[in-house]
Amino acid sequence: MDLVRTDESLMPGKNPASLTVRGRRVGLADVAAEAHVHLSTASRALNPLTEGRVRTSTAERVRTAAARVGYEPNVVARSLRTNRTYTIGMLIPDLTNPLFPPIVRGIEDRLSQDGYTLLLANTDGDEERERSILASMSGRRVDGLLLATARRDYPVVNELLAQGTRVVLVNRTMDDPTVPSVAGDEYAGIGLAVRHLVQLGHTRIAYVGGDPDASTGLIRYQAFSSWLETEGLALDPALVAVAARFREEPGASAFAELLDRGSDFTAVVAGNDLLALGCYDVLKARSLAVPQRVSVVGFNDILFADKFAPPLTTVRVPHYQIGVKAAQLLLESIELGESTGMAVRLAPQLIVRESTAPPLL
Amino acid sequence: MDLVRTDESLMPGKNPASLTVRGRRVGLADVAAEAHVHLSTASRALNPLTEGRVRTSTAERVRTAAARVGYEPNVVARSLRTNRTYTIGMLIPDLTNPLFPPIVRGIEDRLSQDGYTLLLANTDGDEERERSILASMSGRRVDGLLLATARRDYPVVNELLAQGTRVVLVNRTMDDPTVPSVAGDEYAGIGLAVRHLVQLGHTRIAYVGGDPDASTGLIRYQAFSSWLETEGLALDPALVAVAARFREEPGASAFAELLDRGSDFTAVVAGNDLLALGCYDVLKARSLAVPQRVSVVGFNDILFADKFAPPLTTVRVPHYQIGVKAAQLLLESIELGESTGMAVRLAPQLIVRESTAPPLL
Repeated sequence: MDLVRTDESLMPGKNPASLTVRGRRVGLADVAAEAHVHLSTASRALNPLTEGRVRTSTAERVRTAAARVGYEPNVVARSLRTNRTYTIGMLIPDLTNPLFPPIVRGIEDRLSQDGYTLLLANTDGDEERERSILASMSGRRVDGLLLATARRDYPVVNELLAQGTRVVLVNRTMDDPTVPSVAGDEYAGIGLAVRHLVQLGHTRIAYVGGDPDASTGLIRYQAFSSWLETEGLALDPALVAVAARFREEPGASAFAELLDRGSDFTAVVAGNDLLALGCYDVLKARSLAVPQRVSVVGFNDILFADKFAPPLTTVRVPHYQIGVKAAQLLLESIELGESTGMAVRLAPQLIVRESTAPPLL
Repeated sequence: MDLVRTDESLMPGKNPASLTVRGRRVGLADVAAEAHVHLSTASRALNPLTEGRVRTSTAERVRTAAARVGYEPNVVARSLRTNRTYTIGMLIPDLTNPLFPPIVRGIEDRLSQDGYTLLLANTDGDEERERSILASMSGRRVDGLLLATARRDYPVVNELLAQGTRVVLVNRTMDDPTVPSVAGDEYAGIGLAVRHLVQLGHTRIAYVGGDPDASTGLIRYQAFSSWLETEGLALDPALVAVAARFREEPGASAFAELLDRGSDFTAVVAGNDLLALGCYDVLKARSLAVPQRVSVVGFNDILFADKFAPPLTTVRVPHYQIGVKAAQLLLESIELGESTGMAVRLAPQLIVRESTAPPLL
C-alpha cells in the first residue's frame, strides 16, 4: 500500500470532500484508477524525473486525475521508492555575509523548479561543525551537496566524490580542477579593476587581499599581480597586504599596516567589498579622502555598495546566476548519475561609482 | 533490521576499519551490543527527544559506544520509527531582503543545536507559490513551520493549526492573537523614534509606512499615531504616506507624493530602513539635506545602515534573537505536542547616528 496523504487545508479553494476517498487518505492507486492507468504508470507520470518515460498525453491525464482526486505525494514514501530524497544540502560560511543571500536565493529558485528542497546550514568555517553537518546531511540522504565553504585543499570533498556523492562547489573552488564548481571569473574581474585604475592614470596601486587558503584569496592576488605586469607596472611587495578573513575589520587592520609602511600609492584594489569597507574606515580615520587622495575598488558589488560613502566602484559578480547555475549543474549530475567535473565561470562587470578618480598630480 | 549507515569518508580523522562491522554498515544493534543494553534503550538514548527516559549514565555509555563503533543514525529510517523528520520548514518573502539573513541564521543555529535541519523557501509574497511550497513541505512531513510571510488575515495558518501542524510566525504577526509569534516590539520601537525626534524639537513629523495588510504595516502606523498623540502632537493626514511594499522604490514614490502635497515638516519616521533609503533618494534628488533640512529615522537597523550617507538613525530590532526565540518556541511546541499561543516581543533599541538633528528654526 502506498503511504500517501493529502492536506486539504493547504488548498483552501478546493472542496475538501473531493480530497478523501471513502473517508481515507487519497493514494496513488486512486489516481491510477481515476486516470485508467497502471499504478506504475501513475507513479512515473507524477515524478518529474521519470515523467519523460510516459507518453505526454498519458502524463497529462495522470496529473489531471491527481488534481481531481486531491493527491499529494508523500515525499518520505517516495524517497523510499526512488531512493532519492529530493533534498539538496548546502553549506555556507555565514548567511549574514551579504555575499550569500543572492547565491542561496538563486539556488533555491532553481531547485524548487525541479521539486527539490534546500537544506541550509552555516559553518562559520569551523571544520568540526562542517564535519558534523555533513554527517547529518548524509544521514538525511541528501541527493547532493552544494558547498560554498571550500578551501583550496579540501579533502572531505574528494572523499564525498569517491563515495559517489554529487557535489558542486559554489563561489570558492579547489586547486584540484576535477571537482565541479561554479564561480565568478575572478581573474577577468580583477583585470577589470586593475585596468580601470591604470586608465585613470594610477601607477602605484596597492592590494588588500583575503585568506589565501581560499581560492578567492589566492586567485584574486595572482590576478592582481599578473594584470599589473601585463599593464607594465611592477608589483611592490610593500603595497600588498593580506587580511586573515574577507571581512571588514581584518581588512582595516591589514590596510592600516600597509599604510604604516609609508610607501606611496594613489589607489587600492580590495579583494572584496567588505575589505574595501575596511579600507574606507582606515582612510576616514586618517583623513585621507576617497577618491581625491586614494581611489578604492572593491569586488562583488554586494547589496548597498551603491549606498556607501562614497558609493563604491567595484566588480559586479552575478551571484544570483552563480546560484542558479550551481543548482543546475548539481541536478544534471544527479540525473546523469555521475560527476561532470565542469568548471563554470560567470562573467563579471565593472561598476564605476564615486570611489575612483584620476590621481592628484 | 535497522536501516543505518555510516559515512567513514565524513570523518577523515577516524580509522575506517572501526566504522564497519564485519564488512557491513554499522547498525543500532552494534551500538546496543557494544554498550551492553537493549536495542530499545540504545534507540532512546541516541534520540535527543527521548534520551531523558534513559538513565544519564546509560545514555552516556550508549553515546560512547556509538562513537566507538562509528554509528551514524539514518534520519530517514529514524523518521519512520519516531514519526518525526527532524526538519523544520521556513517560508520567507525574499532572502535578499537584508532583514532576513540574521533571522534565518538565528533559526538555523538554534535548530541545529537540537539536531533539526532547516528547509528554506522564498515565496515573494505570491500566494500560489506559498500554497505549493506548503503542500511540498507537508509532503516532506516537516515537524513544524516557521512563517515570515504572514499577512494579518492568513487563513492558511489557522488551517495548519487546526490539523495539528506546529506553526510559529516570525517577524510578522496576525490579527488573531492565538497564533504563536516572535517579533520585535514594534509599538515600543516606533515610540523610541518619535520621542527621539520630539526631544530634538521636531513638531511637524511625517510618516512613510508600508503595506497595511502586514502587521508590520499596521502596527507601526498605529504606534506612530498613538505616540504623536501621547507627545501632544496632532496627526496631520497630509504627512502620512503608505508604500505598497517595504522596499526602497515604493518608499521613494510614496515619499515623493507626500512632499508634493506641500505640507511643511522637518522630520520623517520611515516604517523600515529600506523605506528610509527611499526617502534619502528623494531628498537627495530635491537637494534637501539630511539632517539639516529633514531628519530621517528608520526601523530595523539592517546591515550597513551605519554605512549609508548619512549613517542612518534607526531602531534596532534584535533579528538574530528573534530567529533563535522563534526556533525555540517551535521546538517547545513540538515537544509538548501542542501549540502554545504565545506572543514573544523582543525589545528594540534606538541607534542615533547622523540622519537626525534639531530642526532649523
